[in-house]
Amino acid sequence: MAKIDDLRKIATRLRIHSMRQTTVAGSGHPTTCLSAADLAACLFFSEMRWNTKDPDDPGSDEFVLSKGHAAPLLWAAYAEAGVISLESLLDLRKITSDLEGHPTPRMPWVKAATGSLGQGLSVGVGMALAQRLDRSPARTFVLMGDGECAEGQVWEAAAAAACWTLRNLVAVVDVNGLGQSDRTMHQHDLPALARKFRAFGWEALIVDGHKIDKILAALKLVGKKGQPTVILARTLKGKGVSFIEDKNGWHGKPLKADELARALEETGCLPDVDSKRFVHKPKPFIKKKVAAALDFPRTSYTEKTATRLAYGNALLSLGKVNAKVVAIDGDVKNSTYADKFFEALPGRSFQSYIAEQNMIGVGMGLAAKGYLPFMATFAAFLTRAHDQIRMAAYSFSNIKICGSHVGVSIGEDGPSQMGLEDLAMFRPIPGCVVLYPSDAVSSEACVAAAAAHEGMCYIRASRPATPVLYPGNETFPIGGSKVLRKGEGDAVTVIAAGITVHEALKAFEALKKEGLGLRVIDAYSVAPLDKAAILREVAGTGGRAVVVEDHYAAGGLGEAVAQALAGQAALRHLCIRELPRSGKPDELMERFGISASHIARAARELCGR
Amino acid sequence: MAKIDDLRKIATRLRIHSMRQTTVAGSGHPTTCLSAADLAACLFFSEMRWNTKDPDDPGSDEFVLSKGHAAPLLWAAYAEAGVISLESLLDLRKITSDLEGHPTPRMPWVKAATGSLGQGLSVGVGMALAQRLDRSPARTFVLMGDGECAEGQVWEAAAAAACWTLRNLVAVVDVNGLGQSDRTMHQHDLPALARKFRAFGWEALIVDGHKIDKILAALKLVGKKGQPTVILARTLKGKGVSFIEDKNGWHGKPLKADELARALEETGCLPDVDSKRFVHKPKPFIKKKVAAALDFPRTSYTEKTATRLAYGNALLSLGKVNAKVVAIDGDVKNSTYADKFFEALPGRSFQSYIAEQNMIGVGMGLAAKGYLPFMATFAAFLTRAHDQIRMAAYSFSNIKICGSHVGVSIGEDGPSQMGLEDLAMFRPIPGCVVLYPSDAVSSEACVAAAAAHEGMCYIRASRPATPVLYPGNETFPIGGSKVLRKGEGDAVTVIAAGITVHEALKAFEALKKEGLGLRVIDAYSVAPLDKAAILREVAGTGGRAVVVEDHYAAGGLGEAVAQALAGQAALRHLCIRELPRSGKPDELMERFGISASHIARAARELCGR
Repeated sequence: MAKIDDLRKIATRLRIHSMRQTTVAGSGHPTTCLSAADLAACLFFSEMRWNTKDPDDPGSDEFVLSKGHAAPLLWAAYAEAGVISLESLLDLRKITSDLEGHPTPRMPWVKAATGSLGQGLSVGVGMALAQRLDRSPARTFVLMGDGECAEGQVWEAAAAAACWTLRNLVAVVDVNGLGQSDRTMHQHDLPALARKFRAFGWEALIVDGHKIDKILAALKLVGKKGQPTVILARTLKGKGVSFIEDKNGWHGKPLKADELARALEETGCLPDVDSKRFVHKPKPFIKKKVAAALDFPRTSYTEKTATRLAYGNALLSLGKVNAKVVAIDGDVKNSTYADKFFEALPGRSFQSYIAEQNMIGVGMGLAAKGYLPFMATFAAFLTRAHDQIRMAAYSFSNIKICGSHVGVSIGEDGPSQMGLEDLAMFRPIPGCVVLYPSDAVSSEACVAAAAAHEGMCYIRASRPATPVLYPGNETFPIGGSKVLRKGEGDAVTVIAAGITVHEALKAFEALKKEGLGLRVIDAYSVAPLDKAAILREVAGTGGRAVVVEDHYAAGGLGEAVAQALAGQAALRHLCIRELPRSGKPDELMERFGISASHIARAARELCGR
Repeated sequence: MAKIDDLRKIATRLRIHSMRQTTVAGSGHPTTCLSAADLAACLFFSEMRWNTKDPDDPGSDEFVLSKGHAAPLLWAAYAEAGVISLESLLDLRKITSDLEGHPTPRMPWVKAATGSLGQGLSVGVGMALAQRLDRSPARTFVLMGDGECAEGQVWEAAAAAACWTLRNLVAVVDVNGLGQSDRTMHQHDLPALARKFRAFGWEALIVDGHKIDKILAALKLVGKKGQPTVILARTLKGKGVSFIEDKNGWHGKPLKADELARALEETGCLPDVDSKRFVHKPKPFIKKKVAAALDFPRTSYTEKTATRLAYGNALLSLGKVNAKVVAIDGDVKNSTYADKFFEALPGRSFQSYIAEQNMIGVGMGLAAKGYLPFMATFAAFLTRAHDQIRMAAYSFSNIKICGSHVGVSIGEDGPSQMGLEDLAMFRPIPGCVVLYPSDAVSSEACVAAAAAHEGMCYIRASRPATPVLYPGNETFPIGGSKVLRKGEGDAVTVIAAGITVHEALKAFEALKKEGLGLRVIDAYSVAPLDKAAILREVAGTGGRAVVVEDHYAAGGLGEAVAQALAGQAALRHLCIRELPRSGKPDELMERFGISASHIARAARELCGR
């Protein structure tokens, strides 16, 4: 019983820290920390094996706080374990502190930013997969709230974990029955949640989340049946402080100073216990070194080839020389050509089915454990994972994403399948590199550039086969561009990317016959944009420029160029300005104004012809 | 048995039409039509009560083809029912035809565009809710694929339907066991799917999806237990044609001409049956007329008020005069102040919990049935529903969305809670109006403008209380702007919106003391942007302009203005250029460069001071 008493004391310390931090900060979510304090005490100071000196010890169990608003509890646990100082807790939410309002990896023990709910389980799935790939004995624990179980992504992750039989994955749900604005859907009906998890292939255990002995007993059972395990813990929000316990209206509300004083009368002072003694170190585990080259032999192209096909070829070639590369698919691998990797390297290939949110989250988890995940689906369907992509940026995730089938040039399948807003989605993502190859050579080079870049990269790939434009050894550095046509006395610069580069080249030929010189730039690096080169070339054509893209008007290449050229040049922007429809690719490019004929017309008009 | 034989013949006709259409088009998904043909025959020609003359008959059962790639089957059913001609089927996927590759409401019997999978059930939930609100005896049928059941949104919708006890909602899942690139997760393990639906509170029935009598028998049982019902139908992809039946690799592949000939040898010619005779008309049902005013009495404001609070006030006022207005919340209604509406008008308020994808889909369904849905959550979490918002635009949905807590001005909660990419998300959405009020008066006016506009509107709301800038009767038309400060000899125009309008006004005061005149524009209509006024005012200040926004650099107000001013003016863009962090709102606005002091500095620099 000694240990149970100590854990109870640690839980009380976590509660007091959580309340104090948020009262001093003047904002935050203390009640959700109080409901989960006993669970956190049992995880961090009994069940988990982890190294308080090295957040990247491959032998350590991993922890994800999916209910990110309980950040003060997480910081308190790290302080009690000696990872950070107790004093630092009172800097919570200050602009000078890395202890943010919701966890971010600015604090290095945090592997994934959380705070947009329902995402942590997918990250945990990715980490557990990585541990299995590493043949590590470590496990992954995800602390969730019951409110976030309303998010569909939780069930995408649950299905994937069961499908991949991740017995090393443990979800602990703090079922306090209260959301932000209402009681949760199932309130304290824990069997209702258990039925869902069991139907999704999990072992589900129900416990009293404030009884240390019951929590410990449940934790002893995890993974025994060869399935992922969920511990559904019945708790009370605000547990331990009578006037906030199980009360609605206390979600994102710190205690006032006098309320804190009253609360501390109920909890007593900080109990005397040396929490650090209860941290269990992991057994030494050394991760096997593997080949991790970033360059790879390029395929030689002579025939017209789709950039998506070259993406698939490059991914396979990269995977052969780099054992950290893993591929995740959303059941379109025969369209993105990731299937080449899946066939050759099945051990590093993961079918995430039609569940894009989980696909990105799993990639984040794998990346956090040192893998180099490449994920691909139709660009249009990446909008499904916009929030996850956003959170991946806040997690500094080294993930690579390919979106295929962009723009009206996909043709007959119609607007639902056309990626026409993906540049607007990825360009604002902090630090995200956006590459948009126009031919097979540049597509392979973009995969190489993305692999070598530390951070998120997006590669935009087209459906139709396009002619080869570049010699096989051409490099495509991030932030660069290519001047494809240039002559003395050029009248207009055309800035294009992807499929429209080919239209620009056709327009070049047409206007050459008319004696009007076009300068043609392939702006394959949409972000960062090669502003200097664009400014220089446009200046060289009298400040006349046309930008043309297979994307909606807002947020794409056109606006990037408009921003770069602000005040410097007249600009015509050719892009998709209305809702498109089914039709043949050429018909659609003509009808929606991005074909060679439209480029030529815009150039003539700029020159007053 | 006569009827069963006839339905079998109709199913064969649907199969033949589906194959012919896609062969003629040269693309499309015939095999998924073949698996669902018997189900479609039973629904359209036996179970459903619907009016082939009026797609908006309120007494008609509604139908949503969630598995949108089976569009040829849907067109075939409408042709057999006499809604469109049989000849028109052969125009499938042509640029001149409204029979697109995936269904869109260009064809008026389609109420929601589909083709991004896993979205139809949410739309069906919204329609079934609308039918209940209408006190209509009609029901809603959603035809789904088993592959799309991997999408989390399906489980968000399933949970909502059970929570709202929608016994008038029927999902029919065509379990053909084959996805696009692989066998599906559960293949033909129908009990696995049944367990999931049952755990989510549904009545689940398993049938042989190619046995007409079994399908009809199951359909007779729907709704009997007071729950939503799912019929899980075991089918074969490509059913009826031996060389494609249950074969992988035939997902998005039409038959070649010779293959079609072989297939028709197996199916025989079009069986002789007059399908139209089997369409059941609905019983006459007249929808009650309700008050539907679009203007409402405005609240009077004198004190500093957050635009989100004014949004909540306006929503309630609108709801009182317009019974079509419904509100849907993602468990943040105490933050968006939608709770005012929820408390006063509970019958038209729907708690969708933390499930933003379903929230938007339910709104689409309600809008398709004539309701006027307002949905609100943190702008950051709307990224969760980007794909749904995209599809809502393709559905011409008349939905209104409010995103609160935008930008770094939310303060301590940190980046995961800051809407910093929402303008970049909404501006490309075809036809979407984007409004961004700066004070309580304009916020109420924006709600009025959004309500009166037919089409999607997004209202961007801030967290902090801001001073009242406008008289109570000021109007804010879509596409307009306000010139807040203007004088002779102004040196620089500042274009701001929302919170930065107040920073611009502070900068105006500071620079006035220095003898430098600022012209200040409140660009509350971000899309469409008031280009003419901005061009005019900027020209009046010597072509010097500063644009300032609490948003990332790409895709927001700054790029919209850059595009509008292209070649016309020098432009400084103040915005959030790196990953922000927790801190006090004022500290963050200062640190990340969008405060009054940064505006003043940019203006001075533009003037060479």
